[in-house]
Amino acid sequence: MAHFIKSELTALGAEIELRELGKQEGSDVDLPPIVLGRYGNDPSKRNILVYGHYDVQPALVEDGWDTEPFKLVETDGKLIGRGSTDDKGPVMGWINCIQAHQKAGIEFPVNLVMCFEGMEEYGSDGLDDLIRAEKDKFFKGVDATCICDNYWLGTSHPVLTYGIRGCSYYSITVSGPSADLHSGIFGGMVSEPLIDVTHILSKLVSPQGKILVPGVMDMVVPLTPEEEKLYDEIKYSMEDLYSATGSKTNLFDTEKESLMARWRYPTLSLHGIEGAFSAPGAKTVIPAKVSGKFSIRTVPNITPRELDECVTKYVNKVWEELGSKNRMEIKLLHDGMWWLSSPNHWNFEAAKKATKAVWNVDPDMTREGGSIPVTLTFEEELKKNVLLLPMGRGDDGAHSINEKLDLINYINGVKTLSAYLHYAAVQPMA
Amino acid sequence: MAHFIKSELTALGAEIELRELGKQEGSDVDLPPIVLGRYGNDPSKRNILVYGHYDVQPALVEDGWDTEPFKLVETDGKLIGRGSTDDKGPVMGWINCIQAHQKAGIEFPVNLVMCFEGMEEYGSDGLDDLIRAEKDKFFKGVDATCICDNYWLGTSHPVLTYGIRGCSYYSITVSGPSADLHSGIFGGMVSEPLIDVTHILSKLVSPQGKILVPGVMDMVVPLTPEEEKLYDEIKYSMEDLYSATGSKTNLFDTEKESLMARWRYPTLSLHGIEGAFSAPGAKTVIPAKVSGKFSIRTVPNITPRELDECVTKYVNKVWEELGSKNRMEIKLLHDGMWWLSSPNHWNFEAAKKATKAVWNVDPDMTREGGSIPVTLTFEEELKKNVLLLPMGRGDDGAHSINEKLDLINYINGVKTLSAYLHYAAVQPMA
Repeated sequence: MAHFIKSELTALGAEIELRELGKQEGSDVDLPPIVLGRYGNDPSKRNILVYGHYDVQPALVEDGWDTEPFKLVETDGKLIGRGSTDDKGPVMGWINCIQAHQKAGIEFPVNLVMCFEGMEEYGSDGLDDLIRAEKDKFFKGVDATCICDNYWLGTSHPVLTYGIRGCSYYSITVSGPSADLHSGIFGGMVSEPLIDVTHILSKLVSPQGKILVPGVMDMVVPLTPEEEKLYDEIKYSMEDLYSATGSKTNLFDTEKESLMARWRYPTLSLHGIEGAFSAPGAKTVIPAKVSGKFSIRTVPNITPRELDECVTKYVNKVWEELGSKNRMEIKLLHDGMWWLSSPNHWNFEAAKKATKAVWNVDPDMTREGGSIPVTLTFEEELKKNVLLLPMGRGDDGAHSINEKLDLINYINGVKTLSAYLHYAAVQPMA
Repeated sequence: MAHFIKSELTALGAEIELRELGKQEGSDVDLPPIVLGRYGNDPSKRNILVYGHYDVQPALVEDGWDTEPFKLVETDGKLIGRGSTDDKGPVMGWINCIQAHQKAGIEFPVNLVMCFEGMEEYGSDGLDDLIRAEKDKFFKGVDATCICDNYWLGTSHPVLTYGIRGCSYYSITVSGPSADLHSGIFGGMVSEPLIDVTHILSKLVSPQGKILVPGVMDMVVPLTPEEEKLYDEIKYSMEDLYSATGSKTNLFDTEKESLMARWRYPTLSLHGIEGAFSAPGAKTVIPAKVSGKFSIRTVPNITPRELDECVTKYVNKVWEELGSKNRMEIKLLHDGMWWLSSPNHWNFEAAKKATKAVWNVDPDMTREGGSIPVTLTFEEELKKNVLLLPMGRGDDGAHSINEKLDLINYINGVKTLSAYLHYAAVQPMA
């Protein structure tokens, strides 16, 4: 894929380097190279950095695809195939922008700085290091960044995205006996690790989604009338939520509360338990060592460090109160910071104008509940605004079977990306 | 194995029938036959029924065995191999009893009625039905039953076993969305089934092992001074428990309390959760449907039906209080009744005398925390006393790797079984 992108872009006159990253940690396999490219070197033009990824999620026909996942097909106005929307389609979109300008004989409005990686679906190995190493070299002079790698909130209205939640992922491991025990023989004689873990997990969050760890909600920035107003304009209905979850298990009754819960408030989710009996059937085991897994999605101004202090202190206190003879260890498995941009920055203004020009509507300003860590790295290292400008729709099925990109989203997407570059070239920076 | 037993016993003059049981439920595989045998038909002698099983747990060298599991080896006074103690060794013991009498020219003291099955490790498929069908035919006239299929409490002192706990096994299933959800996107918007299950499980039992379901402890028969006295004489130390569990996670500080918790009080154990993330690592999933598994070990006078009423009523009440929009279902996966015999019955008196004659000590009178459902079936259907007379030791590693039977336990075990038959032949029935 990297070589394909290089040959496409080289043919169009871009300067391309495939940056090798060495072996994957703990393996003998080469990491796929990052494609670094530049189209245009005019010092009088702005430098716009665009990011995408050419790797995809795994896919097999046996997973339930209606078509061969790695052969793109067009059906009923949809481009169906793995990567169509996440994120090969958008990467092709940037290439199409250059092609379209050349065919139409229109001067390209900016110097296009490109960074396309091949490890996004596996944690972007090596990308953060490269950004840090190249911030004053390859990335020098970048005026703004545009990432085309997320989705509309729904299926009919274009959006621009100005925020992403962070994520701190924890395990709580309780160990007791040296091996699993038979519950008939030892039940009642020994302290059971799974009972302890269940008690701790139940004290982290209520069935209504209320985080019970003291201090976490105190760090959340208050809602301003200006921010609240953004939510009033979003095209989203409870029916969208019912349809996406196949249920009416919503915690809130209104669209606004639901979207705020997803975007601007922290959440604590329980993911599972490792080490206990997890198969179908009825096994009479007392598991010797079990780990409860949970994560907290974070928002401004929760820092991973302060959150970790709250969580660790609270879990240790709960543990003391349980009075168990087992051993407990709480561990932060990974964390990633939230990102929040200004939806009024000139970079966003350019994208708003582009969206309006192509789709003839004002885009909704959205945030994402999940994480795209590279967003924050670009912003922190390059000190320039980052815009998320999605091409596909909320029902594209990224990571799922029958992944698709609507043809109109592809065509209008390329137009929007191009128009964005034109507006970004001239938008006042104030 | 069934054919081997048949040929051994036929050669000794016993009448043997291999009773076919048809196909295993839901499969095309024949169930292994039950060996029904009779040695002696003297109407002036008592009829003693003995039970054992010739099937074993699976075993592979790769599991960690030091030797080939299906080749019996003798090392340092131990017979090592799968089934040595559970339960091929004891079955061979009964055959050896007959052989020994013939070689020594001593008249066999009783008519020996034999029932050796091949599905014990898989739930004794077909055995209950056979006992019911044959109670007035093959099993007619049985005066007492002896089961040689459990273990000493420790490693040095012989025991007789007069009680077994029952077991009622439950699942609590909570379902919400129609498929697993991404916690970044949906965390905070929807009610999470795993949070609900965790809350319910934590309200079933305390970390100190206290059952929180109202009504259960009220059904337990009070401790009498006579029963308590039995515990004073048991050779068991806290060190035995520490060594067996590889930990000091005991819920009680004394031997007596620990053994009572294992034998005469109910226990609620949590076994695991089905449907949640259970692998190593950090997956950000909201599981759509999860089942918490737990079981309650039951004792006199808790009946499965009354227990089920208590559990169902309580869990439904807890569920109401949670106020979740998900769906909850509590299901009894299986139940088995406890069994409690009189340790002063003539059948036990015969075994006490036999133990004293062979080992030169009085046996400890023990109960089992786990379940051997066929014990109860024999007693209920045949209306005759059942005795559990174990051959092996508590550290034999039944179901584990390097299963063994000490040679002295095998030799003295055969002597004890034989002596038991002699005492059972003459012990006053009053």
